[in-house]
Amino acid sequence: MALIVQKYGGTSVGTVDRIEKIAHKIDAFRDKGDDLVVVVSAMSGETNRLLELAEAVHPHVRGRELDVLLSTGEQVTIALLSMALNRLGCPARSYTGSQVHILTDNVFNKARIRTIEQEKIRADIERGCVVVVAGFQGVDEQGNITTLGRGGSDTTAVALAAALKADECQIYTDVEGVYTTDPRVVGEARRLDRITFEEMLEMASLGSKVLQIRSVEFAGKYNVPLRVLSSFVEGPGTLITLEDEHMEDALISGIAFSRDEAQLTITGVPDHPGVAYRIIGAVSDLNVEVDMIVQNVGADDTTDFTFTVHRNDYERSLAGLQTAATELNAREVRGDTKIAKVSLVGVGMRSHAGIASKMFGALGKEGINILMISTSEIKISVIIQEKYLELAVRALHDAFELARHPKDRVDTANP
Amino acid sequence: MALIVQKYGGTSVGTVDRIEKIAHKIDAFRDKGDDLVVVVSAMSGETNRLLELAEAVHPHVRGRELDVLLSTGEQVTIALLSMALNRLGCPARSYTGSQVHILTDNVFNKARIRTIEQEKIRADIERGCVVVVAGFQGVDEQGNITTLGRGGSDTTAVALAAALKADECQIYTDVEGVYTTDPRVVGEARRLDRITFEEMLEMASLGSKVLQIRSVEFAGKYNVPLRVLSSFVEGPGTLITLEDEHMEDALISGIAFSRDEAQLTITGVPDHPGVAYRIIGAVSDLNVEVDMIVQNVGADDTTDFTFTVHRNDYERSLAGLQTAATELNAREVRGDTKIAKVSLVGVGMRSHAGIASKMFGALGKEGINILMISTSEIKISVIIQEKYLELAVRALHDAFELARHPKDRVDTANP
Repeated sequence: MALIVQKYGGTSVGTVDRIEKIAHKIDAFRDKGDDLVVVVSAMSGETNRLLELAEAVHPHVRGRELDVLLSTGEQVTIALLSMALNRLGCPARSYTGSQVHILTDNVFNKARIRTIEQEKIRADIERGCVVVVAGFQGVDEQGNITTLGRGGSDTTAVALAAALKADECQIYTDVEGVYTTDPRVVGEARRLDRITFEEMLEMASLGSKVLQIRSVEFAGKYNVPLRVLSSFVEGPGTLITLEDEHMEDALISGIAFSRDEAQLTITGVPDHPGVAYRIIGAVSDLNVEVDMIVQNVGADDTTDFTFTVHRNDYERSLAGLQTAATELNAREVRGDTKIAKVSLVGVGMRSHAGIASKMFGALGKEGINILMISTSEIKISVIIQEKYLELAVRALHDAFELARHPKDRVDTANP
Repeated sequence: MALIVQKYGGTSVGTVDRIEKIAHKIDAFRDKGDDLVVVVSAMSGETNRLLELAEAVHPHVRGRELDVLLSTGEQVTIALLSMALNRLGCPARSYTGSQVHILTDNVFNKARIRTIEQEKIRADIERGCVVVVAGFQGVDEQGNITTLGRGGSDTTAVALAAALKADECQIYTDVEGVYTTDPRVVGEARRLDRITFEEMLEMASLGSKVLQIRSVEFAGKYNVPLRVLSSFVEGPGTLITLEDEHMEDALISGIAFSRDEAQLTITGVPDHPGVAYRIIGAVSDLNVEVDMIVQNVGADDTTDFTFTVHRNDYERSLAGLQTAATELNAREVRGDTKIAKVSLVGVGMRSHAGIASKMFGALGKEGINILMISTSEIKISVIIQEKYLELAVRALHDAFELARHPKDRVDTANP
């Protein structure tokens, strides 16, 4: 008999009808004999409704009271789901983050989980109950309500699975799993049976929005097998685990992309030690996160810097950079918001050369110019003009034969 | 410097605009130097919205999960009001019933308060904070969320005032105080400056819906001065206290009435010991509360019984009574739902004869037939045909000169 933690997101519990469907699903699961702990989000739209109320009484409000407000969203769902289960004759008990004592630090609006009390959950499970826990929320040492930030329900589920040493943590979403790339861009995109935590992290941070990054980190850290499945369509989903012998023998697992980038360039900077710090420092002092950074050698003892930031941070960053440019007596500052990032991700590329050249070749064949390149152990990212984004993703998906299972690919040789 | 507990009901916090108005009101109060603990209800409509959701997933649901659901209503309000106060620069902190540890028994949906922890509230008050507490809710010894039943926010406020030994508990509503009778029926109805707990209990239980009965009982028991005021109109409201020398020197304080009654009669019952028990028992076994009971001596060793029940319980009661009638070999069972109850209430009538005869005279002059009479120390109630209700209330209001202040009344003599 396995212990499974399941998490249903806002869309899955978005209406009373859907809550009833999920209750039937859970009841059927119970009949198979597994023990279940279920984590739910607020009904879709509810968090935004609450945020609008908050905006109306106190624009841009943050802090303690916002968490008191937002945490009601999940509390409504746990009650309704437990009622629906009880009506089906399936014993169920709901718990808020505070009741099951999901202890967090005291950083309101984006708290981090420290510990979870298991006592009540274990006792309920032993009595044959389905335990329904509110995602996204916890309580600090002083008893204040905290929330984990958007998407935090995934983290709650993984943290519960880790604490209870569950056999699997299943994240139910509106997609059928993790795909080789976004199926809306590439029709033949293929659902992956398995993917490693590392790859999933790269996919998630590069714009693939299936799972919240922190929950993947957490699952990796505590080695909680994590499965992404659809709430609406039956299927095995995608299992996210440590790398093992069952892994697909692939060089590349998937292609992630993001349109949220903007590029900034400063040219003709004196090539002295400390200059990089002064340039990037000027931007990060504004609380802007810098993503890719490239430095080129320029002419006559000067150098050129290019880096990317989130598109929302572009204007602020440009202003900060211009100030720095004046101080550094740089030649020019320029920027571009019409760019996009495309990345190949795969643990297999660690042991294989030639991935980068094949990638650049495929893009070149389509006439797509590469503006920046950045690589890590399991990923190669390029910045291109935004208008080429779909073309680039399709070209790479074809070139690396991602629509086929790895064992059927032409050039997937064993190392 | 006084410590005041204020309670704002659902209508007073029904919209974001109203919450902001209440915040300004509270902020102005603070500026006068008093310490404030504020209890709020759910925004009007919210509890019904939540009940509809519950009905949709589990019709007629009761018990633990309903309280988890309903308690979110007040939690939203405490957060929004605290945000609004903080925005005005008025420090405020919100607490759910569970956070401030309003310990109740474990009767879900209608729990009773046992104790309240004062520590956090006192500490916040000392730091100059307005403490905002969710009404209507508490927590049992196992940490389960409980609710006090409809109108329970009044009880929360009074219980907090009692625990904190507050100088006054102010209940803000949509009326300007307690009136001599319903101003919608009698245009000249007069706001009372003061009324005793006892009188208020009679007024409340007789259909005057200003305050929840349990909160008045609670205030009387712990001698918490209770003031009813309007959220929307400035004014002193009505103070509900122990009887004292400041009391209006009135025989009659007010006229309460109710249309929710139905009358049942059983005639020709053998006049034996135990018969009353068998008749009333047959009805109360159905969990019906019996209000007025009158027994008349009938002809030839039989007796007639008449009693009233809530109109909603009429059909069930009639069926029960008919069964009892067959067993008792009674002559006849009949009933009437077109009746109403009118009551004179006043602590002054204890020491004055002649109130009843004056009442009956005033009704007789208008041609209103009295169907039943019942009296207590501070109240006389009559049952009349419903169609005469408004006429009767106006006639009595005139006869006892309630529109005038007691010292200006013609026949208000000192005893």
